[in-house]
Amino acid sequence: MRTLYHLWLSPFCRKVRIALQEKKAEFDLKAENVWDRRPEFLAINPAGEVPVLIEPDGTAISGSQVICEYLEDTIPEPAMLGKTPLERAEVRRLVQWFDEKFNREVTENLVGEKVNKRFLKLGQPDSSAIRAGYTNIHHHLGYIAYLVDRRKWLAGDQFSLADIAAAAHLSCVDYIGDVPWNESPSAKDWYARIKSRPSFRPLLGDQIPGVPPPKHYADLDF
Amino acid sequence: MRTLYHLWLSPFCRKVRIALQEKKAEFDLKAENVWDRRPEFLAINPAGEVPVLIEPDGTAISGSQVICEYLEDTIPEPAMLGKTPLERAEVRRLVQWFDEKFNREVTENLVGEKVNKRFLKLGQPDSSAIRAGYTNIHHHLGYIAYLVDRRKWLAGDQFSLADIAAAAHLSCVDYIGDVPWNESPSAKDWYARIKSRPSFRPLLGDQIPGVPPPKHYADLDF
Repeated sequence: MRTLYHLWLSPFCRKVRIALQEKKAEFDLKAENVWDRRPEFLAINPAGEVPVLIEPDGTAISGSQVICEYLEDTIPEPAMLGKTPLERAEVRRLVQWFDEKFNREVTENLVGEKVNKRFLKLGQPDSSAIRAGYTNIHHHLGYIAYLVDRRKWLAGDQFSLADIAAAAHLSCVDYIGDVPWNESPSAKDWYARIKSRPSFRPLLGDQIPGVPPPKHYADLDF
Repeated sequence: MRTLYHLWLSPFCRKVRIALQEKKAEFDLKAENVWDRRPEFLAINPAGEVPVLIEPDGTAISGSQVICEYLEDTIPEPAMLGKTPLERAEVRRLVQWFDEKFNREVTENLVGEKVNKRFLKLGQPDSSAIRAGYTNIHHHLGYIAYLVDRRKWLAGDQFSLADIAAAAHLSCVDYIGDVPWNESPSAKDWYARIKSRPSFRPLLGDQIPGVPPPKHYADLDF
């Protein structure tokens, strides 16, 4: 059995959880409080970050994109990176879009300020960062709508890691009720299709102590 | 002929320049002042960032890791990501180490504060960020030494994209004279081996107007 070291509201860990489910790879979840800098965990990943995947033989793979590329290498079907070099480039471009740009402009400004900062006792949320997050998410929902108005899924005709990465980030922001779904029917329809996938269901059952999700979080009809 | 849109002191663009040279792929360089947000460039890459590679047929690939994975897909030899899934996971882990952790802890604190900030007229360099950069680079040189004391190259017996990414970042910091090479003979020896590769030579000839490099920057015996 594989083990995934993770944190509940980390979009990067959620991305790997969905990817493992899509590949039908069984795994146990272990929450790792990375801020404790546990020596045994640092020995596994000197960067001290989650996600880290432990293979059944004890091999450790660190970092969400490294893990997802490794899964695609070792469990090729169903493909989640595309079949041709150009398809893979488009999937990876969009994964990077969400893991870097969306993360910096939205996830960190909203989930980072409102939840992580409180949890780590790093002081009061920065209201200007939160305002920036609210402004930025409109542009990103617009980009998602632009893409799915032209393609079946974000990167093309096939469901891919681009959809997984985008949904992983949005699910964290949705957990705190900060996604203005009603302003973008196309983006909402795309997310509803993701929510109904069996790979995504476990995330909808997440309950973080002291931070209950809004009622619509787990609803397929939201 | 390929075209690479780039910026001279961007470690991500340097990484792609070295990778293209290693793959013996000919290309023209075009400097793109991304802060101008030129509409024609935004149409090519909506993220508005370099590097962007234009293939001879006009196809555009954006983002340093996306481009490098695409090059490995389309020009497999010489391999720069490793041959087995585990080798590739170790190469990608270290690429991410340098592109994210080293970039955040060192490159942005030193090159970002001292050069980019002045160039973009973003105010005075932040002296606490610069101090953090000086402190952090010791740990990273120590990690490079730790790796090359145990392996021929950073990720194993073969030269790889891990070496390319690490050297791309260090070359930017070295351009402003901020790498304390003498404190780490192993790291210095590794960098000397990189400097002597033909793929790295063009970077040593870079001259940024108004920001001359120190004399040792281009010296193979530094």
